[in-house]
Amino acid sequence: MNETIAIIGGTGPEGRGLATRLVMAGHTVILGSRDAERGAMIAAELADSLGSRVTAGALRGAANAEACANATLAIVTVPYSAHATTLESLREHLDGKLVIDAAVPVRFERGPRPVDVEAGSATEEAAQLLPNSTVVGAFHNLDAESLLDPEARVDADVLITGSAAGKQRVALLAEQIEGIRAIDAGPLRYSRFVEGITILLIGLNGRHKAHTGVRIAGLPSAE
Amino acid sequence: MNETIAIIGGTGPEGRGLATRLVMAGHTVILGSRDAERGAMIAAELADSLGSRVTAGALRGAANAEACANATLAIVTVPYSAHATTLESLREHLDGKLVIDAAVPVRFERGPRPVDVEAGSATEEAAQLLPNSTVVGAFHNLDAESLLDPEARVDADVLITGSAAGKQRVALLAEQIEGIRAIDAGPLRYSRFVEGITILLIGLNGRHKAHTGVRIAGLPSAE
Repeated sequence: MNETIAIIGGTGPEGRGLATRLVMAGHTVILGSRDAERGAMIAAELADSLGSRVTAGALRGAANAEACANATLAIVTVPYSAHATTLESLREHLDGKLVIDAAVPVRFERGPRPVDVEAGSATEEAAQLLPNSTVVGAFHNLDAESLLDPEARVDADVLITGSAAGKQRVALLAEQIEGIRAIDAGPLRYSRFVEGITILLIGLNGRHKAHTGVRIAGLPSAE
Repeated sequence: MNETIAIIGGTGPEGRGLATRLVMAGHTVILGSRDAERGAMIAAELADSLGSRVTAGALRGAANAEACANATLAIVTVPYSAHATTLESLREHLDGKLVIDAAVPVRFERGPRPVDVEAGSATEEAAQLLPNSTVVGAFHNLDAESLLDPEARVDADVLITGSAAGKQRVALLAEQIEGIRAIDAGPLRYSRFVEGITILLIGLNGRHKAHTGVRIAGLPSAE
């Protein structure tokens, strides 16, 4: 099924990286930005760099609200400092839709540090702010630089938290990205652990000059 | 170097599992228990089940305090509910020694749930309680059943947090267990993420009827 995917706060590295892989998988992506012009510009630059890998019209930019209004599902990649206010402002446009939260509550002060979230995790916060959407956590732990390079091999599991129906749709989407295995990581309340892994991976990337991802060993191969 | 390793709270599955692999690697292990007789009994049973895989005298049991007093390093595998009181009571016996904390702040109530730790993580709590020891976090994420079966393949990374000197000694020890790669996961304050992964893995084990471990993809192979 071809989805039209809004990436909220999609002009950052993680948003552009996911957009790269999702248009390569045949979906339509709208890079959302606070500023419609900036969204359009970054989308045009990205489409240009992808050349023939992207079908004409499959990648465009827009203001976050317009991106959400026109999408079948949305992925949240805003910095955590903008998380709550951005989602609140988009509530009506996300009504009845699947929202995949990839935001990580992290701040940088001599290395990455966790930000305490009253709801337990960014994803649970999103679920509270968007009671009429299906909120699922996923895509936190993917290295942006690897996603952005269409020639790079992606080697990672995507850990998905939330309700069963939402997770199934996200798993199908995630596994359309080559090199990715989707794993049902449990209910929303496990999101904090998945978000925490990102902070660990950012630290490893710095310490080992690497682009790391997480893999779960020992799952049945039918997974 | 042959170590004499006290496993504090060593009669549970994780403690016995680590003991199994560490005696197989040629170390001497003392299974510590609140009750010296229970420690001795469980150690004798485990030695018996391991047969010729364990050298005579390489595995014995003792009260936690005696185990620590006679060890060159200690591994903490007590349930989190006993973590602080146990470590406080052993402080003098752990003076100047390396202490590897593998305890996970988890409680079980329809699935595993995190316990909030004021210090941020069990390992940081241990470091506060044992100011004269070198406290390192490691071994949280290893599946106990796989460790306990000497024929089972261990397939996991051990993420190590703490000071550089301590981590190096723990990495050498961890990699003596076949199938394990040791990874420097950063300073003590990252311990909460490593401890959180265990809760995620316990959930995955239940959900997928599996014995999972974590692997970090994308590290330089010289690691």
